[in-house]
Amino acid sequence: MNTFKNIKALTFDVFGTVVDWRSSIAREVSIMGAKKKFTLDWNSFADEWRNGYVPSMNKVRTGEIEWQNLDSLHRKILDNLLEKHNVKTLTEEEKEYLNKSWHRLDPWNDSVEGLTKLKKSFIITTLSNGNVSLLLNMAKYAHLPWDMILSAELVRRYKPDPETYMSASILLDIPINEIMMVAAHKKDLANAKSLGMLTAYVPRPLEHGSKTQSNLNPEEYIDITATDFVDLNNQLII
Amino acid sequence: MNTFKNIKALTFDVFGTVVDWRSSIAREVSIMGAKKKFTLDWNSFADEWRNGYVPSMNKVRTGEIEWQNLDSLHRKILDNLLEKHNVKTLTEEEKEYLNKSWHRLDPWNDSVEGLTKLKKSFIITTLSNGNVSLLLNMAKYAHLPWDMILSAELVRRYKPDPETYMSASILLDIPINEIMMVAAHKKDLANAKSLGMLTAYVPRPLEHGSKTQSNLNPEEYIDITATDFVDLNNQLII
Repeated sequence: MNTFKNIKALTFDVFGTVVDWRSSIAREVSIMGAKKKFTLDWNSFADEWRNGYVPSMNKVRTGEIEWQNLDSLHRKILDNLLEKHNVKTLTEEEKEYLNKSWHRLDPWNDSVEGLTKLKKSFIITTLSNGNVSLLLNMAKYAHLPWDMILSAELVRRYKPDPETYMSASILLDIPINEIMMVAAHKKDLANAKSLGMLTAYVPRPLEHGSKTQSNLNPEEYIDITATDFVDLNNQLII
Repeated sequence: MNTFKNIKALTFDVFGTVVDWRSSIAREVSIMGAKKKFTLDWNSFADEWRNGYVPSMNKVRTGEIEWQNLDSLHRKILDNLLEKHNVKTLTEEEKEYLNKSWHRLDPWNDSVEGLTKLKKSFIITTLSNGNVSLLLNMAKYAHLPWDMILSAELVRRYKPDPETYMSASILLDIPINEIMMVAAHKKDLANAKSLGMLTAYVPRPLEHGSKTQSNLNPEEYIDITATDFVDLNNQLII
């Protein structure tokens, strides 16, 4: 376990890893639906909204469109979805409120307890494509005790661009190999490892609902696998 | 008190406002002196180090030298001071450790309690010329419960450049007139006010030692004056 002795900071992917975006978004949309008298498959709407994220982010990453933060990308996807589903009753203010649903996501059951424990031994930060205000408002809403909010917005580059991962080392002034990336998504960890980070895989089997298939195969780019953040703390603090 | 009803976030100057840099630096230098057998007037050394800050920062602000973070500026000032005072016994590692004294500053007695109370009602962030790692390590050392570290380093512009103040509004996504700047220094508040921020003056009569003269004259750019952060919370939460 000597590999872990030098860890100074843990950086966390957020959507899916720390918070349950799908059921939170479904809930928020359903509340708006009840108020404004429309009905949809709330979970599918959440999935569609999330599915719009990678293609729109890639337009920024490839330079097809100028830098925009995630709130802005989420809003464009939302507008398209509302049109597609023929929801025409929302005011501008209601659309903005609904778009900010992404600031009001519930944590997984272990997130607050696990982060609170980990914070005693390590610097704990986000390392997310969410914008600063999204991550900060979410932290206030969900009581996530971050030491710092690190965001793609601070470098105007979205993961998996290397600049986003490297910004953790630069801004925290900690060698990249003393920082551990924590994520529920293997690709995030593979990217982090390729830049020299340590990696912790925390599968979240309910991220996409009860039918999620977590890929538990061991990978050479994963340094540690934990069932949740409390387990991660137990494994790191031995 | 209606002016204060819309406050969403408080941004804090740090050196002198939240932490007592002078006695902390004097202590750290004296410890190094005891170890490496040199003697100086520790308080004067702290003052000299701090006094080097504005001129070296202004070289960055005017473009005379390229962007450098505060750790880097502090180090150059330190090297000059060690030479001036004929201290030649420090290793490179010891110089670096001493330079990081600025990451180990003690809070004023009310800082942790006051910030903890204020955090319940507001987003609380730094808004400092200190670099991110300096402010973050200081927060871990002194148990300062920031929601977010905002730093000149994130925009590569030092206060009083307007970009630094405005970055709070942009990154927090909060209108500038719903953010209150908190500082022990009137100039900081005058600058913040000129950009539309609310302002709280918290004089720190011991910042420069027992001979400090706090200027308590009322100013049109100061919205509220508080004796400390607990008093600030009491005044804002009525």
